[in-house]
Amino acid sequence: MGGYKLNQWLDSVYSDGSKYYVSNPFPKKGETISIQLRMLENTDISNVLLRVKEFGIEQLYTMKLCRNEKGLIYYTCDVKVKEARLQYQFYLVTKDAIYYYTQYRITDYIPDESRDFIILVDYKKVDWVKKSVFYQIFPERFCNGRTEISVKDGEYSYQGYKTKEIKNWNTPAANWEESHGVDFYGGDIYGIINKLDYLKDLGVTAIYLNPIFLSPSVHKYDCIDYFQVDPHLGGDDALIQLSDELHKRNMKLILDISVNHTSSASIWFNRDNEFYEANVGAFQNKDAKEREFYFFDEENHYDTWVGVKTMPKLNYTSEDLRKIIYKDYDSVLKKWIHSPYNIDGWRFDVADCMARNETIDLYHEVWRELCKELKKEKPDLLILAEDWADCSEMFRGDEWDSTMNYFACARPIREFLGETDLFNVRNDILRGVQVKMKACQLKNRIIEFYSRIPFSMCNQLFNLLGSHDISRLYNNEQVHPMEYRGAVMMLFTLPGAPNIYYGDERLLDGRITDNEGYRYPMDWNMELTEDKRDNYLLYQKLAMLKQNSEALSDGGFLVVYDEAYVFSYARFTDKEVIFVICSTNLIEQEVTLPLKYFGLGTMVTMEECFGNHINLELINGMLKFTVPAHQSYMIRIRLE
Amino acid sequence: MGGYKLNQWLDSVYSDGSKYYVSNPFPKKGETISIQLRMLENTDISNVLLRVKEFGIEQLYTMKLCRNEKGLIYYTCDVKVKEARLQYQFYLVTKDAIYYYTQYRITDYIPDESRDFIILVDYKKVDWVKKSVFYQIFPERFCNGRTEISVKDGEYSYQGYKTKEIKNWNTPAANWEESHGVDFYGGDIYGIINKLDYLKDLGVTAIYLNPIFLSPSVHKYDCIDYFQVDPHLGGDDALIQLSDELHKRNMKLILDISVNHTSSASIWFNRDNEFYEANVGAFQNKDAKEREFYFFDEENHYDTWVGVKTMPKLNYTSEDLRKIIYKDYDSVLKKWIHSPYNIDGWRFDVADCMARNETIDLYHEVWRELCKELKKEKPDLLILAEDWADCSEMFRGDEWDSTMNYFACARPIREFLGETDLFNVRNDILRGVQVKMKACQLKNRIIEFYSRIPFSMCNQLFNLLGSHDISRLYNNEQVHPMEYRGAVMMLFTLPGAPNIYYGDERLLDGRITDNEGYRYPMDWNMELTEDKRDNYLLYQKLAMLKQNSEALSDGGFLVVYDEAYVFSYARFTDKEVIFVICSTNLIEQEVTLPLKYFGLGTMVTMEECFGNHINLELINGMLKFTVPAHQSYMIRIRLE
Repeated sequence: MGGYKLNQWLDSVYSDGSKYYVSNPFPKKGETISIQLRMLENTDISNVLLRVKEFGIEQLYTMKLCRNEKGLIYYTCDVKVKEARLQYQFYLVTKDAIYYYTQYRITDYIPDESRDFIILVDYKKVDWVKKSVFYQIFPERFCNGRTEISVKDGEYSYQGYKTKEIKNWNTPAANWEESHGVDFYGGDIYGIINKLDYLKDLGVTAIYLNPIFLSPSVHKYDCIDYFQVDPHLGGDDALIQLSDELHKRNMKLILDISVNHTSSASIWFNRDNEFYEANVGAFQNKDAKEREFYFFDEENHYDTWVGVKTMPKLNYTSEDLRKIIYKDYDSVLKKWIHSPYNIDGWRFDVADCMARNETIDLYHEVWRELCKELKKEKPDLLILAEDWADCSEMFRGDEWDSTMNYFACARPIREFLGETDLFNVRNDILRGVQVKMKACQLKNRIIEFYSRIPFSMCNQLFNLLGSHDISRLYNNEQVHPMEYRGAVMMLFTLPGAPNIYYGDERLLDGRITDNEGYRYPMDWNMELTEDKRDNYLLYQKLAMLKQNSEALSDGGFLVVYDEAYVFSYARFTDKEVIFVICSTNLIEQEVTLPLKYFGLGTMVTMEECFGNHINLELINGMLKFTVPAHQSYMIRIRLE
Repeated sequence: MGGYKLNQWLDSVYSDGSKYYVSNPFPKKGETISIQLRMLENTDISNVLLRVKEFGIEQLYTMKLCRNEKGLIYYTCDVKVKEARLQYQFYLVTKDAIYYYTQYRITDYIPDESRDFIILVDYKKVDWVKKSVFYQIFPERFCNGRTEISVKDGEYSYQGYKTKEIKNWNTPAANWEESHGVDFYGGDIYGIINKLDYLKDLGVTAIYLNPIFLSPSVHKYDCIDYFQVDPHLGGDDALIQLSDELHKRNMKLILDISVNHTSSASIWFNRDNEFYEANVGAFQNKDAKEREFYFFDEENHYDTWVGVKTMPKLNYTSEDLRKIIYKDYDSVLKKWIHSPYNIDGWRFDVADCMARNETIDLYHEVWRELCKELKKEKPDLLILAEDWADCSEMFRGDEWDSTMNYFACARPIREFLGETDLFNVRNDILRGVQVKMKACQLKNRIIEFYSRIPFSMCNQLFNLLGSHDISRLYNNEQVHPMEYRGAVMMLFTLPGAPNIYYGDERLLDGRITDNEGYRYPMDWNMELTEDKRDNYLLYQKLAMLKQNSEALSDGGFLVVYDEAYVFSYARFTDKEVIFVICSTNLIEQEVTLPLKYFGLGTMVTMEECFGNHINLELINGMLKFTVPAHQSYMIRIRLE
């Protein structure tokens, strides 16, 4: 909180953009909404004002004391929403001080406006995400449903290497030098359909598939035809069947696509005649209509994704490209939204570098246009974008709905557990620095990002610990297994929806040294050891909680403790509070949590979600207890 | 610095966007520039990396130790600028920690990117501003050059009130209830020309005139014809003469305009036939070409500036309006840039609410277009926008060059001197709260804003303490005269260019209770008392310093002390350091300044700019001394 130690009651002040504090978190333009704020009763407070920015001009509204309940007082006022975003701060007035409350913190000076509370107006919300539990599947490695469609040994060559069929499903994935990305286990969409009941049982409500469109590689981020599902995965028919089976089970489906680049073997590009004749594609035919889809210079050099020659970058100055990718009714991105495929969202690969390079900067223009086009087809379609860094500028309601939350989830949590940050580890110098992250640092990393995003979108963040791009955290021997439990609890309880990378629920084996090591085939055939079973039950329990707790889907979020190596926050409604407490300390640590901030001063029912016994001491509305080394707790409290 | 007490040597780390740390602060796209950072020698540092964001992707460059001088070490690396903005952070690496340095602060965790250092690429810089001393003139009240053109008693009526000629120039301005804004003293442009040598002698290098275009009111923000200078001020000819005389003296000229609204008596609107026949203007003629310039509904109601019926708001959905305001060669805003008027900049009144209201949001679109159009005519034209709040989002290089710096200059400095914030004072509740602002609060208010703006634009900020819209600070009896001296020092030394509101240099009288009270006629005829003379000399000295000190025009900016009620910062180059030290303490306070951070550990020449004797103690590169109650110092140190 800005280097200040302010009055203690200020820590109890709370508001957010949820339905508990905003009468309609997703208002239409012209609507009048009421906004609330609460804090402990019996403080120095004399007045609360709402400061709104309207068409560039500051307006102050006096808030009225409207409720006094369970030791908390509530202030409210009405405000008409007039612009695409309602932007506000609270002014907390005492006899001799004015405090300013933004989504970031409370200061005793007038702050800048970069972290004001934001209500998005006329926003096409994606309401289903907040109660979702995602499960990410790398299709080639999940389950082989039809062996007859699997890629065979030497079936084709790609980039100079012949395909290889891995006959023993349980073989660990070979590294790139050996596999060249054409080592096929035969996982396919039919296999996924076979396992839907397994997923349902785990508590999964939505699946996210890594790319499935026609591509010669195992990972398929180098697509050669966006308009067909790879027949080795089951083709379009399998996708239709999967979509139907999912929707029957009330589950959602997200597909992955890179429309930043294609494969150099794409039907649009066709550099080497691997799959198409020489008269097809832009590389060899200067008159091809696809020529303008790429960045060619006069010597036929072309721009690529980060220098990878087999991934030529798409050129969004071309109106025809925009049409075929997202504007036309039968464009790539619309086709799969429509019936009979009916997908519920797109995950955009390398979204951070779309439509920009040394010659063009159409980044925001293309994202805005793309969003507008797709939301016309399906207003609650999820636009989920890959970005590992601070992409908070994209959350204005007209570009992205969500991001792969590396920046404020995977990266800091993994660092809290002792790993070097996922970006820093790529650098020789930074990799060598041994730092043990403290809880306050974890807090800052999370809060700085969340507080730059409208609260209503925080619940849509796509939280993750692992993915096809990073190692499985528990496979790192440096990571303490008990601390990994805490990381999983944070995954499921931070604002946003958790994503389970396939196999993480059963501690699927893998190497942490190379990409292929994160993509082992799913261990259907192996018996679960006790630690694996415990881990499965942890995921299952958390998945059920995520679907059934309003505190986790819609509730408030407040960091309540961040000393030394114990981090704790609350997710809460008026009826329920869940405290998540995670320790990475090597010794036990005494912790105090402010129950009274949540109206919990009096009679309550408490349980530790995993049946751990804790000696809890409740004094003056503060809960005291000891957290053993490496331990994590989730304390759920229901108000009577 | 973010709630942490980090290692002390980290406080010495410094870089900015100036020529001292960036080989070319205003590069063209494709250029390679080198970036530097410095800090104390003999620290724990093992490496420094530059983290650049390129097309959305993080790149890390290892910086090389390139210099070791006067106790400081310098790191450098080259980077090619590829986009409209080069965005970077520094990573400071020790054996067991990584620190992250943004333009805001140093953290020991990976920060968000909202306050990265920014270099603007292909920016049309306004290089003359950084050495400028502005002088703001309210033309009607500055000097009467030609009595024959003055508005006469009853010459016309406006909004129901007859004009009044104030025959005795020294009469204090009457309040609105008495004057109705039509009490004319006869100040005119010829009068300004007569006083140019006075201004030159004061050290003024640029003048900013409140509106001069045809308008029946004293303040002329309600213009009736943008295409002619009011004949009562001397008409177009006087402007040509003023412009020539200024440019002869190597001085610049800024004009003020509101293109957010016109007067309801405007030739385009003409509600009441005050100056035009009924067949003229949009209000009475639905077929008038100007009809689309405004927001009329079917009942002839129209939108206005904040509800003021006599100021109808302009409607930028009209392409014809855009043409006549800023697109056509002979448009309003271009006409006066062209010869023979040759103005050097526009000050845009109520810029914060331009082109937006309940029906449209063309704010950024119009500002970008306007900027582009005007910079085509004169690349170093100053686009100075009025905004009293946090408008940092406008400083991306394609909208505004500068703002009236109320937010991080006038407002916090006046608060530091004991006034209620200029916004808060408008509210009944907030007005009643008595707060004495501490130095750390002042620091935060300033730093939060400056750190959100590219450093190269900070030097263009239009700093002010007073204006036609706020009371003269020294006229507030609660403000200590010695502390006012400190406020003036900050005005001249904060990054940006100082603006002297006419008469402030001679403590011109006025009321602090109403707008008219800030617009007394200039006291040419009165003898200067000693305090007024001293004050004049203070301004003169500071104006000379501003023009002649590279530290003030181009140098670094670092807050070095902010305890209790003493605030101190340094402006500095490699050759010169100016410490500004301002106390609002009621008692003396001991202060320590870190000379060694600036390469000042050894032999230096020191002077207090105003000849004050200070008992300075220099121990281990730290300068210790006592600041008496209310006192301010400027200590200038030149390196040998």
